[in-house]
Amino acid sequence: MIKNPASSFDLNSYLILKRKKVNAFINEILNNTASSSRIVQAMHYSLMAGGKRVRPILCIAASEAVGGNADDVLPAACALEMIHTYSLIHDDLPAMDNDNLRRGKPTCHKAFDEATAILAGDALLSLAFRILSSINLINKNNSSNQLKIIHKISFATGHNGMIEGQMRDIASEGTLLSLKKLEDMHSLKTGALIEASIFSGALLGGGSPKQIDQLEIYAKNIGLAFQVTDDILNIEGDPAVMGKAVGTDNARGKSTYPSIMGLDKSKEFAKKLVHNALQALDDFDSNSNSLRAIGYYIIERKK
Amino acid sequence: MIKNPASSFDLNSYLILKRKKVNAFINEILNNTASSSRIVQAMHYSLMAGGKRVRPILCIAASEAVGGNADDVLPAACALEMIHTYSLIHDDLPAMDNDNLRRGKPTCHKAFDEATAILAGDALLSLAFRILSSINLINKNNSSNQLKIIHKISFATGHNGMIEGQMRDIASEGTLLSLKKLEDMHSLKTGALIEASIFSGALLGGGSPKQIDQLEIYAKNIGLAFQVTDDILNIEGDPAVMGKAVGTDNARGKSTYPSIMGLDKSKEFAKKLVHNALQALDDFDSNSNSLRAIGYYIIERKK
Repeated sequence: MIKNPASSFDLNSYLILKRKKVNAFINEILNNTASSSRIVQAMHYSLMAGGKRVRPILCIAASEAVGGNADDVLPAACALEMIHTYSLIHDDLPAMDNDNLRRGKPTCHKAFDEATAILAGDALLSLAFRILSSINLINKNNSSNQLKIIHKISFATGHNGMIEGQMRDIASEGTLLSLKKLEDMHSLKTGALIEASIFSGALLGGGSPKQIDQLEIYAKNIGLAFQVTDDILNIEGDPAVMGKAVGTDNARGKSTYPSIMGLDKSKEFAKKLVHNALQALDDFDSNSNSLRAIGYYIIERKK
Repeated sequence: MIKNPASSFDLNSYLILKRKKVNAFINEILNNTASSSRIVQAMHYSLMAGGKRVRPILCIAASEAVGGNADDVLPAACALEMIHTYSLIHDDLPAMDNDNLRRGKPTCHKAFDEATAILAGDALLSLAFRILSSINLINKNNSSNQLKIIHKISFATGHNGMIEGQMRDIASEGTLLSLKKLEDMHSLKTGALIEASIFSGALLGGGSPKQIDQLEIYAKNIGLAFQVTDDILNIEGDPAVMGKAVGTDNARGKSTYPSIMGLDKSKEFAKKLVHNALQALDDFDSNSNSLRAIGYYIIERKK
């Protein structure tokens, strides 16, 4: 078992505080628009449907780890959540996963309609880039860094990242992937945006190139660990705690870590990944305790 | 009848030359990716389905009008075409206009499938922002201007622009809009991106604030004139020349300029708009002859 190197860190309070900040900022952005319009209602509905805010929190924690602060990266953090939400709205569509429920609530196309859901996703992606290109994004107003994060994020969300991952996910349903192909698929579908989240926080927070390199190693490992643990919870989780059904991966014939390497080896693998992630933080001071605690939490979480 | 103030300008050769440049650059971008993937094939298919390249050409012409050159703005121009193509792919989807053909070829979801079409659109939007944020976008490497065009374009494509326009277009089918509401709808759906195209070209080309203001007046007027003429052609056009059916607006119960103000008044209105557009170019030298010729062409075109 991995020892929690930041056991005195109160992760729960940290997560609550950061989620509150993120939610307040998202509400502010949407209230500044013509909120009576149906499209903004749909965007708001999906953004406020109870997401864990993993990407914005990782962005903020990465900024803090290099000595930056949360407020400076909050717009970028929220833009990342908008991109994540857009991807979920589109993934849930009838032509893709055809899901009626997400986090216990009707999916966007069920609560509104299919055209509105497609357009709400589209609008969230544009809104994310609008926020990322705002001149008020960072106090230091370093345009060159702003362009770098837009470039990184647009790469991560596109046909060399998230979109290709989703294409492979759809194509692979019902076939058993090799471990390499499964890892590539997750790395594209979810890993790239998690890495971009941490990169953005670290760059805007003023991290050195070496610090950013180390944080990217952290990101790669916890992104994958998060996925492996998701697969494990889909077998062993408690539906009452998780708020969603278990056993669905198996029923859908999806390739997962447990289906390829077995349950015990998957657990070992998740621990090894978190170990690697924490090791990448060795040269960081106590400002990175949130990232350490998040790494530890990933394999201990029950939902 | 408006006198063509740039009658000696060979618009046809100009359009052929610029289209060639745009097509070559788009091909280069897509060939630099893993082109064997299905998603890139779908993106390529729709990008190369015979578009007129109106937005990239306006971007290039605006740059030239302020003394810039085509090659410096070519990446931005092509990014604008990717955004336009993404919007067409999504508009054609079964949940929206449910069109099987575009420019005589099967629409993306017919040639591939619905999931691929949704994702190809998504990927084109991300690719556009990836190109716009590339450090090689402009020779002068003025990050601040790059951010400004990303901001303008992401505003134009989002819930205060194109997306809201499409929402209103869907909602209005079968009802007769007021002239004001019809204008607002087109201004959002197509006007905003045309204005952003001209703004981007003018800013990257080194235009002064006053020049950019004048070009924005030009853009607003020709954007609307283009739409009014489209509505007129849908009644009077020759299907053989246009390569698409006429009378479809009426059959679908769509509000159009002729349906609201009559055919003759619509023609007068289009001429007045082009007159206003050309007037906005009064202080520009002969480098703006392409913009003048394009304005003139808009009301004379047969397809």
